[in-house]
This record gives sequence, structure tokens and C-alpha cells, in this order.
Amino acid sequence: MILDSISTGDIAALCRGSVFLATGGGGDPHVCQLLVERALTTRGPVALAAVETLPDDAWVIPIGEVGAPTVSLEQLPAGDEPVLALDRFERHTGRRASHLVSFEIGGANSVVPLLAASARGIPLVDGDGMGRALPEAQMMTFSIEGVAPTPAVAVDHLGNVVILETTDPVLYELQVRQLAVAMGGMIFTAEHAMTGREARRAIVPGTLSFAVALGRILLGGQGDAEQRLPELAAVFAGSQYGALRPLCTGKLSDLDRRTVGGFDVGELTIAPFDGSAAVTVALRNEYLLARRGEEVLASVPDLLTLLDLETAQPINAERLRYGQRVLLLGIGCPPHYRTAKALARVAPRCFGFDVDYTPLS
Amino acid sequence: MILDSISTGDIAALCRGSVFLATGGGGDPHVCQLLVERALTTRGPVALAAVETLPDDAWVIPIGEVGAPTVSLEQLPAGDEPVLALDRFERHTGRRASHLVSFEIGGANSVVPLLAASARGIPLVDGDGMGRALPEAQMMTFSIEGVAPTPAVAVDHLGNVVILETTDPVLYELQVRQLAVAMGGMIFTAEHAMTGREARRAIVPGTLSFAVALGRILLGGQGDAEQRLPELAAVFAGSQYGALRPLCTGKLSDLDRRTVGGFDVGELTIAPFDGSAAVTVALRNEYLLARRGEEVLASVPDLLTLLDLETAQPINAERLRYGQRVLLLGIGCPPHYRTAKALARVAPRCFGFDVDYTPLS
Repeated sequence: MILDSISTGDIAALCRGSVFLATGGGGDPHVCQLLVERALTTRGPVALAAVETLPDDAWVIPIGEVGAPTVSLEQLPAGDEPVLALDRFERHTGRRASHLVSFEIGGANSVVPLLAASARGIPLVDGDGMGRALPEAQMMTFSIEGVAPTPAVAVDHLGNVVILETTDPVLYELQVRQLAVAMGGMIFTAEHAMTGREARRAIVPGTLSFAVALGRILLGGQGDAEQRLPELAAVFAGSQYGALRPLCTGKLSDLDRRTVGGFDVGELTIAPFDGSAAVTVALRNEYLLARRGEEVLASVPDLLTLLDLETAQPINAERLRYGQRVLLLGIGCPPHYRTAKALARVAPRCFGFDVDYTPLS
Repeated sequence: MILDSISTGDIAALCRGSVFLATGGGGDPHVCQLLVERALTTRGPVALAAVETLPDDAWVIPIGEVGAPTVSLEQLPAGDEPVLALDRFERHTGRRASHLVSFEIGGANSVVPLLAASARGIPLVDGDGMGRALPEAQMMTFSIEGVAPTPAVAVDHLGNVVILETTDPVLYELQVRQLAVAMGGMIFTAEHAMTGREARRAIVPGTLSFAVALGRILLGGQGDAEQRLPELAAVFAGSQYGALRPLCTGKLSDLDRRTVGGFDVGELTIAPFDGSAAVTVALRNEYLLARRGEEVLASVPDLLTLLDLETAQPINAERLRYGQRVLLLGIGCPPHYRTAKALARVAPRCFGFDVDYTPLS
């Protein structure tokens, strides 16, 4: 089902679906959900524009937050950061945005641009720059498809503003990451601006509508995670994602997590209920690589999602707790990430893992 | 002797005097010295403006480099960073600079603004923002006297540009430090712009002329460091600095130095020739605290300078080598740093040392 607008009543489903697609990252959406619900209740729905309908001369500005997801639980947004970033971006470039778009359909970043779209009465594109969440800016499909990262504007909850001009995508990622570290761990940026012509190629399409549909299924219905697997598999079967596969069911027996250089990094261990060998999941903001011993069960860019076993709800990494009973899922990534140029940015070796990418599907 | 302009023939003396006043930091001036000498040979002398003659409506822009001094030995400047920073600063603020000024009369930062002043044909103020070198932006007299750090522009040797707008001096320091880390370890900034009225209060006056005079004495004459002490003491006796005092003569018996968070931090140990207990000097870009056991010999904001014992030349920290024979000097700081509001930014406790400041003089 393709939505042509997004209303207060869609936001809870959008957030829940986005936590599922966030593969552990994207930032906790709770506070942003409340802010967006209030904005849409006050000002009405935000129009959604389908990627394929964008005119060549549209001017699409991605807006989102950058930082370690754990910080999103402690450093709360003021709510006006997205529109401040947009205002300053437009003032610096002298050009008004026709549309906004999300960095990633993951956690808080799915709803962050809605705050600016609502405040300014402009449409949001039904799509995003990852089709999931990933930790670094150069991993966005915008960047992979050649959109320049800057001019970019970074703001914080105190209204401090930084404007960046650099053409190197990896340097840009280093800069915004270090700025996030300096500015309390979380900043909001407007960046990777693109024309409609570029956007049609660079945006993963339809992901907002998909996340709402997925979220409605997660929020409704009965049964534990295993019982609801067929229902979830059916949603993905008709999508641009690959097959959904249960990888392991067990208990979180270890959780090693630190905030390093502006990222949450670490590893979690699942002790399977069937007594088989432990499964480890490596983390860098997102769940990236699931292994049983040396055997790779699934890896980035395919999606890894942890569901709470009893409630069947997705768990973002900053809410993981020792002893939780979980179902680990692997899901094939959207086609944007199956190309050689995309894999050069997001294959397991890009994260320092000494394994090749073997598609799950 | 007060200079009214600075020529090619002054630069070697300026750099040598600045390394002395840099108390170990400020960055190695060698490459900047060559760049400035070439600029002044081509375009002629740069006019110097005395602080007290600045008109109220002058618009004075400090320009300098930010980063760990060790990096200055490896990441060489392109040479056009200072004028690029100035150009972008003026374009962002819509106001032309009437004068430039140095962050610190220390190492490379004494000569960096000469590159922009020469390229643009505008005068440099005879003075600086520290009267020595210190590691952090909020420690500059500009900041202590209430000049806002931003708008500020940071550039690197590749021409990447970052514009900052933040009013908090400590946050600003964190931002530029983290940007330096992201951008290869060294950036050039234009910041803390001030009117002539502010500049007359906020600038430590006459330090460029003083550094040239000091440098001429260091470069000329005969004798080892101990023999030349009376000559050096005489230069300081007639200055705004306090007394110059030899603290210890010995051999560098230990050198513990790392680059952490964009700073060079560590400690060096001097084994005195007279067999007395070892003297340690704590380092954070600059030499900050000299102790013999628990006894404080001298501390920031007073100056600590290491001279090579045989040549009587000052040694910046990134050029220290195990086994060097040195004379450690303590020198009273300029009056700008003896006020309560200045000590709130630069006393030993601001660097994490659990000691009070006891003036050397």
C-alpha cells in the first residue's frame, strides 16, 4: 500500500516499522515520535511524494540526526533542530527545498524530517537513503549514487550551527562524526542535496509506506515472534527486500558495548535454546554480522533484526538487556546495495570484518 | 624596539623568538617560515600596527592553525590556507578585515597570519592573543576579554571549508579540536573577530616586536645556555613578562608523549647534572607544570621554556629527543594572565593538575 500523505495516526506504526528496519540503529524514536505526533495533530498531514513522480528540477534535501544511538536516550531533541538545519541550509545555498527526505528508514531518522516538512508545509519523499540503517554517511545510497555530501549544515539542540563544504564523502563522515562527539553526541544535519533527476536514481523508493505497513502488522495481531513469522515473511515477500529468515532463537548471554569515536560498538552473544553453539552479532550502531563460530549466518548489507521473543517487537541496540529472550532474523537487502559500487562502501570488509559478503537470499 | 613593519630579514628572528615564547607548543615554524620569507621577498614588507593606535572601528581578524604540534612536522601547509580562511570569513560575514592578528606568539602561529596579510596587503597587529602559546581557544586573551569565538571559518590544506556559529567558548574549542582530528590533525581558522575598541583591551601588545628582538639575541652571540642567561634575563627585565629564572640543568632521561584527542600530551623527565632529584614537566601541547617530586617549580600561566644546553636555542616539544642536555627556564607571564578572570581559564587546575598557581615572580 502506497501512502500519499502521513498523519498523526500513522506515526506509531512508522516508528515501529522503522525500528524493525533499523537493524538495531537509527536512534530511539520515542521522543521524536511524540514531537511529530504533536506537529501533525496541530498542522495536519504531511504530503508524501513518490520517488518516480519527482520532477527533474525538484530540490530534495535529506535531513536527519547523526550520533551514537545510545545518546538518543539521554540527550533529548528540542524539536526545532530539523527546521533550523533546513533554514540555515537554504540561507547558505540561496535555494529553497521542494521536498525533504530521510537519511535512513531506521529509528528516529525515519520521522526526524517530518518535523521540518510539517513546519514548512512541504512534502516528504516516500523513500530514504538506506532502506535500512547503516552507521556512516558515505554508506547512504545518495552518496553511492554520486550526490555530493555538502554544502551541509549541522545544528545541535542549543541552536549552534556548523556549515561544511567538502567534496570527499569519507572526510565528510569523519567531520560530522567528530562534530557530533564535540556537540554532546548528537547533531542534526541537512546534507546531500539533490535534484529530482538525481533523487529518482539515488533514493530507495517506497520505504516510508512500507515501514508503516510493517509497523501496523507489528503493532496488531497476537502471538509470539515465532508464531508471527509467516505474517512477517509475507510482508517482505512482496517487497524489494529479499527473503526473511529466522537465524536463531535464544537468550542474550553477553553484551559488550562501548561508545567509541561517536559510535556504539561491541558484540552481543545469543545462547540458543536448542543447545547449539552461541551466535555472536557484531555491532557498530547497527547489527552488522551474525556468526556461529566461524560460520557467517548473515552480514551487512543484508538486514539483521532482533525481535523480543514474547512480544514479537523489534529491539534497537541501545535497549538490549542481558537475559532478554530474542529471535534473530536475517533479511535480504534492497537492490540498491547489491551493486559492486554499493558493496565497495558497505560490504563486511568496510567495517573491518575479514569475511566476504554472501547474500542471504 | 617597536617595529612598524616586518620584512623577510626579520622572519628567522621572529620564528626563533616565537619558539622560545611558545613554551614547547605553537607548532614547528620551519615550513611556515619558508613560505612567509618567500611571500615577503615577492611582495615586500607587511605593516605592523601598534595595539594602542587601532581605531575604534577597526575590524581585526585573528588567524592561525589549530592542531597537535607533532602533526606540523608531517602535514605540511599548502600556504594558501590563511588567505582562504580570511576570504571565506569575509564572504560569510560580509565585512572586510582592516587588520589581522596572531592567536599566539608561539611557533608557527606567529607567522601564519603574515601569509594572509601579505597576500591581501593589510597590516598585522603587533601583538597576539596569548603572549606565549597555550593549548586551547578559550585560553586566548580575546576570549577571556569577552570576544565571541564565532562566526569562525576552518579550512584545511585541501581547501575544505567549515563555518562555525556557536557562542560558547568551551564548545567552540571542542568543535575545532574535533574538526582538526577529522581533517588530518591540523586546520587553519579565522575566528574571534573584534573591533579596534575590543582589540585594544584583548590583545597582548608588542609581542611581535619583542619576539623579533628576542630572536635576534638567540640567533646572535656566543656561548652555551648558562653563559647567555644574563643576556636573556636582560631582555625580559625590560618587558611586560616577569623575571626569567633558571630552574634546572640536566639531561632528558624520559619522554612520554602521545597524541590524544588532537593534543600532544605527556610528561618529560630531566635528570639534573647536580645529582638532585629528577624534575618532571607535564605537557599538553605546551610545557605546563614543572615539579621536583611534589614541589612545584613553576606552572602555567607562567612560561616554561627548554633551551638546548650547548646551543642556547629553544626546543619545541615535538623536537625533544631522549638524552638531550637542556636548561629549563621559568618566566613570569604577561599581566593579562594575572587577573582572576584569566586564571579561571588558565590556572593549573584548568588542565587537571591538583595544584594552585603560585606566581614565579
